Amino acid sequence: MGQSIVITQSRTWPDTGVFEDLVRLRDKAPLVHCITNTVVTNFTANVLLAVGASPAMVVTIEEVADFVRIAQSLLINVGTITTADAEVMLKAAGTALETDTPWVLDPVAAGALAYRTGIVGELIRLQPTVIRGNASEILALSGSAGGAKGVDSTVSSSEALSAAVHLAKITGAVVALSGEVDYITDGVEVIRVPGGHEIMTKVTGTGCTLGALMAALLPISETALGAAASASVIYAVAGERAAKLSRGTGSFAVAFLDELSTLGIE
Amino acid sequence: MGQSIVITQSRTWPDTGVFEDLVRLRDKAPLVHCITNTVVTNFTANVLLAVGASPAMVVTIEEVADFVRIAQSLLINVGTITTADAEVMLKAAGTALETDTPWVLDPVAAGALAYRTGIVGELIRLQPTVIRGNASEILALSGSAGGAKGVDSTVSSSEALSAAVHLAKITGAVVALSGEVDYITDGVEVIRVPGGHEIMTKVTGTGCTLGALMAALLPISETALGAAASASVIYAVAGERAAKLSRGTGSFAVAFLDELSTLGIE
Amino acid sequence: MGQSIVITQSRTWPDTGVFEDLVRLRDKAPLVHCITNTVVTNFTANVLLAVGASPAMVVTIEEVADFVRIAQSLLINVGTITTADAEVMLKAAGTALETDTPWVLDPVAAGALAYRTGIVGELIRLQPTVIRGNASEILALSGSAGGAKGVDSTVSSSEALSAAVHLAKITGAVVALSGEVDYITDGVEVIRVPGGHEIMTKVTGTGCTLGALMAALLPISETALGAAASASVIYAVAGERAAKLSRGTGSFAVAFLDELSTLGIE
Repeated sequence: MGQSIVITQSRTWPDTGVFEDLVRLRDKAPLVHCITNTVVTNFTANVLLAVGASPAMVVTIEEVADFVRIAQSLLINVGTITTADAEVMLKAAGTALETDTPWVLDPVAAGALAYRTGIVGELIRLQPTVIRGNASEILALSGSAGGAKGVDSTVSSSEALSAAVHLAKITGAVVALSGEVDYITDGVEVIRVPGGHEIMTKVTGTGCTLGALMAALLPISETALGAAASASVIYAVAGERAAKLSRGTGSFAVAFLDELSTLGIE
Repeated sequence: MGQSIVITQSRTWPDTGVFEDLVRLRDKAPLVHCITNTVVTNFTANVLLAVGASPAMVVTIEEVADFVRIAQSLLINVGTITTADAEVMLKAAGTALETDTPWVLDPVAAGALAYRTGIVGELIRLQPTVIRGNASEILALSGSAGGAKGVDSTVSSSEALSAAVHLAKITGAVVALSGEVDYITDGVEVIRVPGGHEIMTKVTGTGCTLGALMAALLPISETALGAAASASVIYAVAGERAAKLSRGTGSFAVAFLDELSTLGIE
Repeated sequence: MGQSIVITQSRTWPDTGVFEDLVRLRDKAPLVHCITNTVVTNFTANVLLAVGASPAMVVTIEEVADFVRIAQSLLINVGTITTADAEVMLKAAGTALETDTPWVLDPVAAGALAYRTGIVGELIRLQPTVIRGNASEILALSGSAGGAKGVDSTVSSSEALSAAVHLAKITGAVVALSGEVDYITDGVEVIRVPGGHEIMTKVTGTGCTLGALMAALLPISETALGAAASASVIYAVAGERAAKLSRGTGSFAVAFLDELSTLGIE
């Protein structure tokens, strides 16, 4: 991790590639299997519907493998994990690996709590296509020391960039590091996505649903790196526009869905 | 199923019967026991409160039978069913049958996944008052071949109409077939409810909460057929009005609750 | 309970103490561990984020004790309790007692259903700092007869005031009795908080999230009585302002979050 990190490119809206990904997403409407936390299920479904994807939450052990086989991609978010969820997540991820279904791991609060950190470790061995987290989570997973307060990071994304590159190298996953600036890396390239708005940290699920959007774009984009970067750009521009139209956090969440549902089709 | 289907009537807002049902609903504020999926619990409660009903989600095996005895009606939606939920749903439906409590079954993704299709079959034997589903679900339950993509139908409601009539005949339930046009049938009469707006398919829970509204109207309306039709008309008009006032899917969901909470009392 | 109840003070916005509590809340951003019902998880997180707190829902038996040790306060709301939840709640409350972590108990529908009433009794023995409920719940817990319809009270808050004072005396908890007027008491003092708006009863979770706000203020305010009173005042003023800006229940919920997120920083 001592090497210097070179940021390969910086992307913002409008970007031809991102725009094309969004158009293809609305056209193909991929079925995205979401196993996510109970706080953000509704917002996640609405975000995915807004951008034209087809979300479905199938979460019981009897069905989860069958549904991974039907879906075009999978999201696993451990935010409110329970003992029963852990078994479901491992089976889903194992089936995704077996069937070459691209999948996103959102390791909420990994590093802060021993149980989920262990489960996240097992999930990583099942080869997520993308790992999306904040600086604390990425630092913890890369084996570095990091700071977290509950589910929120106390470290900035730039401080965790070398950890993200390292994590991508050791896991083979694309690592999407979310923060004031997002960084997306496959261990070789690093894409920088600035933008967004601070109010996004005051609305629950803006990070979790970014992971869901990455899952939606995985079967659409040419590369996983491109899918994760497109998702970040779409989020940044929708967040900026929504922030301008809102009076507080309630109207921001509404405007954010409005922007996502009209972006690229105005 | 070879017989020709005759549509008995078509209902739209304003309709005297529907209006009276809505007024009675606000007046009586029935207690509606909801066992529904984790994606739409909040939206379901807010929809029921908006129209004047009193929703309650009681979902543990120790309490579910007691609460069915207290409630005026019951909703069972299998969207995010788990092993534990299945036991709770069967006990609730069994108690509803025993106590003559009217209940609505929403068989989300039945036909697409074996486990839930089996549970839905068991639930149907416990005599739901209304079965509300999309074309794919109704086709699957009636024993016909149908298309589904995850939780969304790939078949239009008119294509599934004869399956709905057949399902009503073999189960004794009113069948409410949701789609661009809704059809509600008891196996003899068929009520057609046009309207609504396409944006409703881009907001999660618009179908699920329609089932909840049917449950709220069951103890209010003179017949189950009338309850389901009133719910569809209320939804169609609230959806149309909200669509006119919204800029995207976020503001649509807000405006939809606003319309439901003011409809008939403007 | 035959003694006459003296209301010590009445608080409304602007109140210097409440304002200072809110400023300190935004400054300290306490980590609030929420174990709450599945209907209101999202709204609860958004309410806490709006006022500057840092919410986290950690709900599995393997993690709950560890997380209580990290958090500054705890909320336990039994609204959609399951068998597994009960074990988690008891372990969380036991750890809170052991570690002197202040915690709020929201005994939704206690008295109406035997199972949860039993669990709530066990939780009360683990010494909640605040018990927040409606009149029916407080009457039931104090051993008085009370009326409830599902999760809503059929008795006004003033009728339950002496029960609240009694419950505070026998448990040692501050009791926050919510209704048209809120009363907060430690068994000696009684603080009256008028205000709010009737539309709040038509949006799910306005009571549940008030309990969450009390939990957020417990590590901030000088006394538990003050924390509960500040939360009620903040809710009353945000509710009144939001009601003026809304067209129905959908826009009310949005405006309510907007008000909470801007209150005291306009």
